[in-house]
Amino acid sequence: MTTSTLISLDEANRAIAAKTKPLGALGQLEDVAVRLALLQQTLTPVVDRARVCVFAGDHGVTDEGVSAYPRAVTAEMMKNFDRGGAAINVITASLGVGVDVIDVGVDCDDQRAAQRMPRVRRGSRNMVLEPAMTEGELASALALGADAARAAHDDGIQALGLGEMGIGNTTAAAALLSALSGRAPSETVGRGTGVDDEGLERKRNAVQRALTRHADRPAGARETLRCLGGLEIAAIAGAALEASRAGVAVVADGFISTVGVLAALHIAAGESEQRLGELTPALFFAHRSAERGHRLALEMCGAFAGCDARPLLDLGLRLGEGSGAALAMPVLRAAAAVMRDMATFASANVSAGEHAAEHAE
Amino acid sequence: MTTSTLISLDEANRAIAAKTKPLGALGQLEDVAVRLALLQQTLTPVVDRARVCVFAGDHGVTDEGVSAYPRAVTAEMMKNFDRGGAAINVITASLGVGVDVIDVGVDCDDQRAAQRMPRVRRGSRNMVLEPAMTEGELASALALGADAARAAHDDGIQALGLGEMGIGNTTAAAALLSALSGRAPSETVGRGTGVDDEGLERKRNAVQRALTRHADRPAGARETLRCLGGLEIAAIAGAALEASRAGVAVVADGFISTVGVLAALHIAAGESEQRLGELTPALFFAHRSAERGHRLALEMCGAFAGCDARPLLDLGLRLGEGSGAALAMPVLRAAAAVMRDMATFASANVSAGEHAAEHAE
Repeated sequence: MTTSTLISLDEANRAIAAKTKPLGALGQLEDVAVRLALLQQTLTPVVDRARVCVFAGDHGVTDEGVSAYPRAVTAEMMKNFDRGGAAINVITASLGVGVDVIDVGVDCDDQRAAQRMPRVRRGSRNMVLEPAMTEGELASALALGADAARAAHDDGIQALGLGEMGIGNTTAAAALLSALSGRAPSETVGRGTGVDDEGLERKRNAVQRALTRHADRPAGARETLRCLGGLEIAAIAGAALEASRAGVAVVADGFISTVGVLAALHIAAGESEQRLGELTPALFFAHRSAERGHRLALEMCGAFAGCDARPLLDLGLRLGEGSGAALAMPVLRAAAAVMRDMATFASANVSAGEHAAEHAE
Repeated sequence: MTTSTLISLDEANRAIAAKTKPLGALGQLEDVAVRLALLQQTLTPVVDRARVCVFAGDHGVTDEGVSAYPRAVTAEMMKNFDRGGAAINVITASLGVGVDVIDVGVDCDDQRAAQRMPRVRRGSRNMVLEPAMTEGELASALALGADAARAAHDDGIQALGLGEMGIGNTTAAAALLSALSGRAPSETVGRGTGVDDEGLERKRNAVQRALTRHADRPAGARETLRCLGGLEIAAIAGAALEASRAGVAVVADGFISTVGVLAALHIAAGESEQRLGELTPALFFAHRSAERGHRLALEMCGAFAGCDARPLLDLGLRLGEGSGAALAMPVLRAAAAVMRDMATFASANVSAGEHAAEHAE
C-alpha cells in the first residue's frame, strides 16, 4: 500500500451516488462498497477470491472444567475439517469461498502434512496458573497467523475471513476481553458451546482467577494477549495485522475472532498511528453472534476511530469456525459489484440524475 | 407435491441435531435448513439454481404526485435491466443467481421481445378514482406472475426471489397493506424512493382517499388486490401462489414484494386450508427493509400459522428490484449445504454425540 491516496472518500461517495438507484437505497451495502473502493484504491473493486482461515488450538484452561465438550474434540474436528465434513467446509463450498485450516496449537500427536509452519505447542498453558503463552510462543502464534495472511495475499485473495476452532476458547476470549475492556467476567463469559449453569459458574470463576493471577502483568496489548489469550487467538491477531498491511479485507467472524481482532487493534495502536490507520479500514465484521460478550467486543472495536464495527449479518450464529465470515462474503462480493458494474444515471439515460444530485450530500 | 409427507419435522430436526456442531449453533441457518428439507422432501436439499423475477409496472396513482421520480423512470429502468446495469443485474451476477425481468404493466410504447406473455396494460388505473384493475386485468396480472413461476420451475429453479420495479408502487403497496391490515396510512406509507415531507403528505392523502373510495368493495382478498393493488404486485402474488404449488422456495424481497406475498396468503386462505398449507412452508423473507410499513407487512405474514416471517438479512436496504432476495440466496444455499453435506458426530467419529443427544429436544 502506498501512503498517497488515489481514491478519496469524496470520490467513492460520488461514484456510488451516481448509480441508478435512489440515494442510499442499498443501505449498508453501499458503505461496504465505498470501503472496498478505498481499501483497494479503485472504483472497480473486486471480491471474487475469498477465503476463510480456521485457526485451531487447545487451551490449558480446560483443566478448570470450563467446556461442555472434551478437549479431544479439537483434534477430532481437525480430522473433520480435513475430510470436508464440518460446517465451515460445506458453507464455504456452497458459496465459492476457499478454506484454509491451520493448526496453531492443537493437542494431538500428528502434525498436518499440508501445513507450511509447524504448530506452536500442544495447547496453551493454563492461564489460571501461568501466562497462556511464553514470549516465544506468542511470537510464533502471531507469525503463524501472519504467514496464513501472506499466503492468502500471494494467492490473490481479496477478502480473508478469520475463523477458529478450539475447545475452551470462549473462556480465553472472555478473559482477554475482560482484560482489554476492564469489564467483569459476568459481562464477557457466555455459555460457549453450551455449558449448563454450573459450568457457566466454573467458567466465570476461572476467568476471574486468571485476571487476578495476571493483574500485575506488564502494560501493553501483547502482554495481555500473552497472559490471557490463546494460541489461535494470537494467530487471528497476527493474520489481521498482516492481511490489512497488504490491503486484503479482513472479515472477523464471531466472539473469539472479534476478540482476536480487538487485540490486533490494541497492538497496532500501541505501535503507531500509521499502523492503526492501515488496520481499521480493512476490518469488516461478519455478524452479531449469539454468544454473550460479542456485543461488547464489537463495541470495543468500534471505539477505534475509523473502525466500522457494525455487523453485516444477524442470524443467531454461535458456532465459530469462520462460519459467519463465510456467510458474509457474498455481501462483500455484491457490494464490490455494485461499485464496479452498476450503470450511472448518465450512462443509462435514466432521468432522475438531477433528483439524485439535488439530494447528494 | 404429494400430500403424504415422507420427511417429517422430527426427522429433519434429528438430522440437523446429529451434525458436527453444538446444538442450534447455526441459529436461523438451521431453521432454514430444516424448512428446505421439508419443502423439498429430502434430507439432501439443494439450492444451486436460484432466480430473481423483477415484475415491473406503472401506477395510475402517480397522477397524485406521490413519487420523487417521474413515471418515465420505470421504462428507463427496464432498458437498464436489459443492458445489465441495474443493481439487481450486478448483484445477481456476482452471486451466481439468475434474473428474469417481466413487464407486467409498464407505460411505454415498445413491448419486450423476449417475454412469453404480453404486458397487461400500460400502467394500473388511478386507485383514487377507480379500481386499480378490472377483473380481467387482475386475472392477467396474476397469470403473468404464475407463468414466470412455472418457467422458473421448468428451468429447475429451486428458489425464486420476487422483486419489482415501478414508480409509485410503495403507494399502491401501502394502500393494499392498509386495506388488508386495517391500519391507517400513517402506519403504512413511507418515503419510498425518497419523497420530502410534502410528498409524504400527498402520498398519505392519496392512500386515504383510495381507501375511502373503495371502502364498499366486495369482500375478499382478490377484490382488495384489484381495487387497491397494482399490476406487478398482483403478479408477485400470482408467482408466490404458483411457485409454492410446485415446491419452489419463494423469497420475498422488501416492502412491496412482502405486501404482494401477503395478498397471496389472503387469497390462499380464502381458497382452502390445503392451499394455504402449500404456500406457507415455501415462504422465506429475505430482509427487513428500511421502508416504513415493512415491519407491519412482515408481522401480518407471520400471523398466518406456519409462516416463518423472520427476515434473514437486515442491511438497511430499501431499493426493491429483488436486491434483498438476491442477497439472501447464499443463505438458503448454505443452509441446504449444511443439511445435505455436513458430517454427523457418528460418521465423523467426533466424541460429543452423547452430549448432543442429551440436549436434543
